[in-house]
Amino acid sequence: MKTDLNSDLGESFGAYVVGNEEGVLPHISSVNIACGYHAGDHNVMARTVELAVRYGVGIGAHPGYQDLIGFGRRHIDTSAEDIYHAVLYQIGALQAFCRVRGVPLQHVKPHGALFNKAAVDAGTAEAVARAVADTDRSLILYGLAGSELIHAGEKAGLVTAQEVFADRTYQADGTLTPRSEPNAIITNTSTAVARAVRMVTEGKVTAEDGRELAIQADTVCIHGDGDAAAEFARELRRALAEAGVEVAAPGMVKK
Amino acid sequence: MKTDLNSDLGESFGAYVVGNEEGVLPHISSVNIACGYHAGDHNVMARTVELAVRYGVGIGAHPGYQDLIGFGRRHIDTSAEDIYHAVLYQIGALQAFCRVRGVPLQHVKPHGALFNKAAVDAGTAEAVARAVADTDRSLILYGLAGSELIHAGEKAGLVTAQEVFADRTYQADGTLTPRSEPNAIITNTSTAVARAVRMVTEGKVTAEDGRELAIQADTVCIHGDGDAAAEFARELRRALAEAGVEVAAPGMVKK
Amino acid sequence: MKTDLNSDLGESFGAYVVGNEEGVLPHISSVNIACGYHAGDHNVMARTVELAVRYGVGIGAHPGYQDLIGFGRRHIDTSAEDIYHAVLYQIGALQAFCRVRGVPLQHVKPHGALFNKAAVDAGTAEAVARAVADTDRSLILYGLAGSELIHAGEKAGLVTAQEVFADRTYQADGTLTPRSEPNAIITNTSTAVARAVRMVTEGKVTAEDGRELAIQADTVCIHGDGDAAAEFARELRRALAEAGVEVAAPGMVKK
Amino acid sequence: MKTDLNSDLGESFGAYVVGNEEGVLPHISSVNIACGYHAGDHNVMARTVELAVRYGVGIGAHPGYQDLIGFGRRHIDTSAEDIYHAVLYQIGALQAFCRVRGVPLQHVKPHGALFNKAAVDAGTAEAVARAVADTDRSLILYGLAGSELIHAGEKAGLVTAQEVFADRTYQADGTLTPRSEPNAIITNTSTAVARAVRMVTEGKVTAEDGRELAIQADTVCIHGDGDAAAEFARELRRALAEAGVEVAAPGMVKK
Repeated sequence: MKTDLNSDLGESFGAYVVGNEEGVLPHISSVNIACGYHAGDHNVMARTVELAVRYGVGIGAHPGYQDLIGFGRRHIDTSAEDIYHAVLYQIGALQAFCRVRGVPLQHVKPHGALFNKAAVDAGTAEAVARAVADTDRSLILYGLAGSELIHAGEKAGLVTAQEVFADRTYQADGTLTPRSEPNAIITNTSTAVARAVRMVTEGKVTAEDGRELAIQADTVCIHGDGDAAAEFARELRRALAEAGVEVAAPGMVKK
Repeated sequence: MKTDLNSDLGESFGAYVVGNEEGVLPHISSVNIACGYHAGDHNVMARTVELAVRYGVGIGAHPGYQDLIGFGRRHIDTSAEDIYHAVLYQIGALQAFCRVRGVPLQHVKPHGALFNKAAVDAGTAEAVARAVADTDRSLILYGLAGSELIHAGEKAGLVTAQEVFADRTYQADGTLTPRSEPNAIITNTSTAVARAVRMVTEGKVTAEDGRELAIQADTVCIHGDGDAAAEFARELRRALAEAGVEVAAPGMVKK
Repeated sequence: MKTDLNSDLGESFGAYVVGNEEGVLPHISSVNIACGYHAGDHNVMARTVELAVRYGVGIGAHPGYQDLIGFGRRHIDTSAEDIYHAVLYQIGALQAFCRVRGVPLQHVKPHGALFNKAAVDAGTAEAVARAVADTDRSLILYGLAGSELIHAGEKAGLVTAQEVFADRTYQADGTLTPRSEPNAIITNTSTAVARAVRMVTEGKVTAEDGRELAIQADTVCIHGDGDAAAEFARELRRALAEAGVEVAAPGMVKK
Repeated sequence: MKTDLNSDLGESFGAYVVGNEEGVLPHISSVNIACGYHAGDHNVMARTVELAVRYGVGIGAHPGYQDLIGFGRRHIDTSAEDIYHAVLYQIGALQAFCRVRGVPLQHVKPHGALFNKAAVDAGTAEAVARAVADTDRSLILYGLAGSELIHAGEKAGLVTAQEVFADRTYQADGTLTPRSEPNAIITNTSTAVARAVRMVTEGKVTAEDGRELAIQADTVCIHGDGDAAAEFARELRRALAEAGVEVAAPGMVKK
């Protein structure tokens, strides 16, 4: 059995430093790098790509809404065409840093409010998938497991990676409990690790209403910020190993 | 005899519309497209690349300082490494729009204060040239004729295009008279056209102190904004034709 | 009978120039000045306040979402507290320019998507009204006639000005037809002028479904951009004069 | 003997959190709050003013260049008029938050590259001082001890506070050693504390070339970021008390 561990990194901006890149990268197989719209800047992107190469992880673009002050977490009411162009732009910008390091871009995963919108809105999902496919049909599209984005990616002929979240709770419809809810985040490490392992090995997760959901865990998202991030990554990695799960970037597994 | 006519276009931003793209593009052979740092946005870039393809002109990235409110015309004191990354980012972003249209990027020309800085500062020139070369060694580097940027491009093994300005005056050292000076701009169309033709055909221009300067006019920059822009482009084109000068994009001529 | 004519001006940004300030200001009695979030910048604000003083019109702050690329026309999903602080900030910034010119701020009118949201969402309306009241209880709050914002302003103890739009059509519920609809804008000048005069003198407007709506026209909004803006302002002013309507800023009328 | 202890706080932005507000505020007498141009945002400003009120410290505006990505530390080549308007805007924005809390603004201190430019460039200094004086002649202008900004403030009729830096070294001309130099920062706490006490009590500091400089320490700037900030503040406060120096905000002392 195989899965991928991914994390959102490269979210520093100018003098603002966030993210535990050096702590988390040794434990994950793929990284989603912010592209300057909701976080990150050209210097941070260069540094993060360099680190990703050093640790041998698959590199992904992490495009978001152009909303630095909101960190890309606020929905902005815009057109599908605007989203298509915004995603193209951000992928292109990150590719520049991959090119000078001589590494390919492996995947694209939308960020925050764009990720959530693309999970449920077919028009947004199609715009994101088309931007990825028009850039390079060999790119892997990461999206919420079972979401509109995964469907749109399949329609566009892309390889997709269905993503699950180790430390987020799920609602009965398979979407994440919004961060505004008190029960959105699982703070107990053992619980989160156990849930993640179960999603990968059994393809199941318990929703907040107690229902059992079938879920495909091609990739597991873990937090990249805070001192606990590296610790959590290490524990999850160990638990997956014990369960006989190999952790590898999908671009390296599937190609 | 041959030369290239280039213009800075794609400088609209959101609801702010500037530039006479449809009027100027029929008359030029290469276009410099703003990349979202000092002007332009992802929608404007998409539209401008589309227009450039329609009119068959060579497409160039026009990276500038990240300074929308200053339109990239103000010097910002930053490091060569920051400039290197900023130029990489902007080129990559524009390449995304070329890729989906199936056209190659032909050249890179820095904008405004970055153009001026790279003309006289070896460190800045080297950073810009290296970003271009590291992206793609077949890209052509546009720079002020006789400038540090041209030297840096040559050192980096790039094909360069020495640029002259039809409606700007020159100082004795070959740099442009700053826009802050009253005599910076040549407003008389016939004078500007005649000077441009002379620069192309004779390789000479008269500086403001009366001195004759030797100048190489691989490409002539003309304004892309205002109603007069199309008219000026047409007149210059006609005058060049009368002088037996062929106008063609360097990427198409030299390859 | 009295009314106020207002226009959104000061929407230029850096090198981007929009708005026919000099053409429109002679014909209106109040001006809404952008505050740097969706349009305008500190230099434009200084210049626009100076022009407003010269033409003797009432000065208003025109706060919007922090969304320059969307010109404040896109809804951004944010909290009431964020809106309260954003409006406070923008009012304060404009007051600085009024203070150095020795003129009072007369009113506040939210812009674009914030105006529309505050018209129908009680929480947003309350946040905007509270920001205005907490700044200065003598400020007049402009809002869509009959909207939640007007109600919130009254509850907050503010003098309100119910606003009607000369060249926009209305839906049966009294809201403006969205700009995305083909019939949103009335392009025929005579029709628009006649409708505006009727709203002021009879308190009635015909909705798109033919229904007659009662409407209170304390202030009429007219466009400030384009060559036609000044012409339209002049015609409306003449028609109002013929109908015996005095045009005056509410801050000057009511105090 | 009296002095003031000030710190730059309120420098968080959106999701980016920096600064040890709760740790430092108990030990200082005045706070410089970023105004949204180089750091800070409307929510951060509201929160920081609220904290400043709670701890009873004098509140100052900390205007900088409009350069979030550079944190206001990069010189931007702009006009004195642009600086005048930018400072007016930022002071006005912060005043809005003081007003709703019912507290006066005590002072203005330019930030980073603007602080450094105003220290040596008479035109910049005059623009800043004029913006402060035009806003409110009772505001206190903070500037580098002995600098052009102090002179400009005096010329403009403002009360000034000459500022010294506890943990920065000085050059022979009285300016700070640039951060790019290895010896710019004094990392040893005892050394920094002793230097600060000597500047306050003896009016002297030793420059990097060994020369003794006369210096007036109306206010001492201490860092507000990092875990060590609160510790340093506490130590300096104790050392000043031992030396018989009272620490108080100048607005409270002098008025």
